[in-house]
Order: sequence, then structure tokens, then C-alpha cells
Amino acid sequence: MRRHLDFFYFIGSTYTYLTVMRIEELAEREGVAVNWRPFNGRAVMTEHPFHGKPVKCGYMWHDVERRAKRLDIEWTSVPPYPLERPNVPNRIAVIAAHEGWAPEYTKAAYRAWFLRHQNLEDEKVLAEVLDGLGKDGPSVLAQASSEPIRQKFADETEVARSLGIFGAPTFVSGTEIFWGDDRLEEAMEWCKSIRPQ
Amino acid sequence: MRRHLDFFYFIGSTYTYLTVMRIEELAEREGVAVNWRPFNGRAVMTEHPFHGKPVKCGYMWHDVERRAKRLDIEWTSVPPYPLERPNVPNRIAVIAAHEGWAPEYTKAAYRAWFLRHQNLEDEKVLAEVLDGLGKDGPSVLAQASSEPIRQKFADETEVARSLGIFGAPTFVSGTEIFWGDDRLEEAMEWCKSIRPQ
Repeated sequence: MRRHLDFFYFIGSTYTYLTVMRIEELAEREGVAVNWRPFNGRAVMTEHPFHGKPVKCGYMWHDVERRAKRLDIEWTSVPPYPLERPNVPNRIAVIAAHEGWAPEYTKAAYRAWFLRHQNLEDEKVLAEVLDGLGKDGPSVLAQASSEPIRQKFADETEVARSLGIFGAPTFVSGTEIFWGDDRLEEAMEWCKSIRPQ
Repeated sequence: MRRHLDFFYFIGSTYTYLTVMRIEELAEREGVAVNWRPFNGRAVMTEHPFHGKPVKCGYMWHDVERRAKRLDIEWTSVPPYPLERPNVPNRIAVIAAHEGWAPEYTKAAYRAWFLRHQNLEDEKVLAEVLDGLGKDGPSVLAQASSEPIRQKFADETEVARSLGIFGAPTFVSGTEIFWGDDRLEEAMEWCKSIRPQ
């Protein structure tokens, strides 16, 4: 079986933008398959990392911009932050992951948020994002609020918690977890060093 | 003038162990001069990153161990943590930095703490560390509690704060700051990309 890396992510995390925009190319080059696994990153956090910490928050945005430029990822300026109600865009990601279009959707959602500074809490924005992918916006949005998808989102969050995940993005290879976009290369390296199962 | 990188560190920080053990070799290879600048990292922190967060703390130690092995840095097992009163070992570092023996002292202090699991809050341990470097332990310890050294430590902490530093280790090149051992390569890269002054 091909080596694979589980990519636990949360639309609302800032550094996740960098990962979302670069993981496919890196994985292709490394011969690693990626499982996109949206989960409720906010629910597993023990604190808000930047709330009431303007210096750290300022550094974070400067760092995200600096890394975007270094990694040749599109950048305009600091987007609206934080998202107050990020559940709907993440539950759409759950549907997309199940149906195999998580990479396209997640990139499109982050482009809307980070590059066009659109509000992902607005269902009209989400409908446009879905429309751009050839999906039926109203139908997907309705499904995103259904009980099975809510349950799947909660279940994935419990899986993440049981693995010891406490933030996003986190990469999982076997029992090893790597937290943060800046650990993506290390996670790939680890993944390639273990025997395929 | 040779390119240089300011290395703001704090004996008490866990990831700083990795940096302390590898920065000299990396800097030599990259042709960058390093200024070792001990400061009160705890004073600039807006929170204790692991207090009351056992999952995150467990990840941190696993990650430090994993990275130590990956970077070929000595490792035994998790040392006593946290240091409750880390000021004396850090004020000794201030003296060492002023007199040009900060790398030797800081590595020796971290080896005592991380590899032999000794208590750096104990002046007998510090005296032994100093003795191992051919220094006069009692004299250095007395100096470490003197007003000028206390003031220098406080001054460096203010410099760090004014630069927007909120944790250790942090690397500074010009006006750019890079936080975390895992950003050392990026900081070196940045340092080399700017015109020497």
C-alpha cells in the first residue's frame, strides 16, 4: 500500500492556509498519499493562541506573510480574523472529504477568505465557492447542517482528540503526530522512513 | 562586516536546548556570526505554554526528543521541568555573554539539566558547571547577584520586548524576528539574503 499521511485541519486556522496551498505538490513529489481530515480544531484547543496577545498575533500574521512569500504562495494582506462561527465551512469540508473533493473545496474556501477577504460565515459566500466548483450550493449547505454530517464532524474531532491532537494543522503518520505547517516536511520524511503497511 | 544573527535565549526554555546544541555548527557552515543574548524569556511570555495543558506538554517533550534524535543531539529522558527559579543560571549567562564564554557555559548548563537531570536552581550545581569551564564558581555566582548584572539582564529583556519578542529561542536579523528552534534555518537564510552592513 502507498504510504499515507493524515492531514487534520480546520478552516479558521491561519497557518493551515499555507499547508492547504502546498501539501498536494509536496506529497506528489514525495510519493505520499494525503487523507484530508477536517475536524473541529477549535474544540480541542485549550486556549485561544492569540486572543489578548497582540504582540504574538502580530508576529503570527507577519510570519504567515513571510512564509507565504518564501513558499511562493499567493498573498494579499491580512484577512478578517478570527472566524466567529466556522462550523458550516468545516462541515462542508467533511462532505467534500467524504466525496473526494476536499482539496479543491478547501483551497477555494481559503482563497475566498485569505485573498478576497470574504466572510466564510456568510452562506452566500460559501454558495459562491461551491458554485465555482460546479457543486449545487443550496443542496450542499443543507447537507452540511444535517445530523449525519454534524455527527461525522464530531466523530473526527474525537478521533483527533484521542490521537493527542491539540491544534491545526496536524499531520499523523502511524502513531506520530506533527503539529504545524512548519513540520510538514518533517512529517513527510517520517512517513517515508516507515515501512508501508 | 560579517553577517550576524542575534540569538535571544533563556535557560529554562525546552526547545532552546536544541538550538544551543546546534547553532554554532550551523552558523559556522553558513558563515554567520552569532550574538548570544540571554534575556528573561519568562518575563515576556503572556502565558505559560504548557501549564495545565498536559496533552500539549506531552507533545512538546515527545517532539523535543524526536527532534534531538533527528538532529543528532544527545538525549537521555525528560529532565526535571519546569525550573521554578531560573534567574541565577540566566544571569550567569549574561556574564558569560559579556566575557565571551556564553556558548560553552550555556551548553554545559543545558547538559547538566537535560542529560544529567541536575537542578540548575541549586548553586552547588552551577558552581560545578563553572568549575568544569575553569571558572571561579563562588566569584561568578557572587557577580551574578550583583546590581550591574541584574540591570544588564533587565535591560536585555527590555530590548527583547521592544523588538516584539514573546518567547525563546528567538533569532533576530535586522528588524526580522524568528521564533522557535524550528525556524533557525529560516533565520539563517534570511540573514544571508540581506546585504551585510
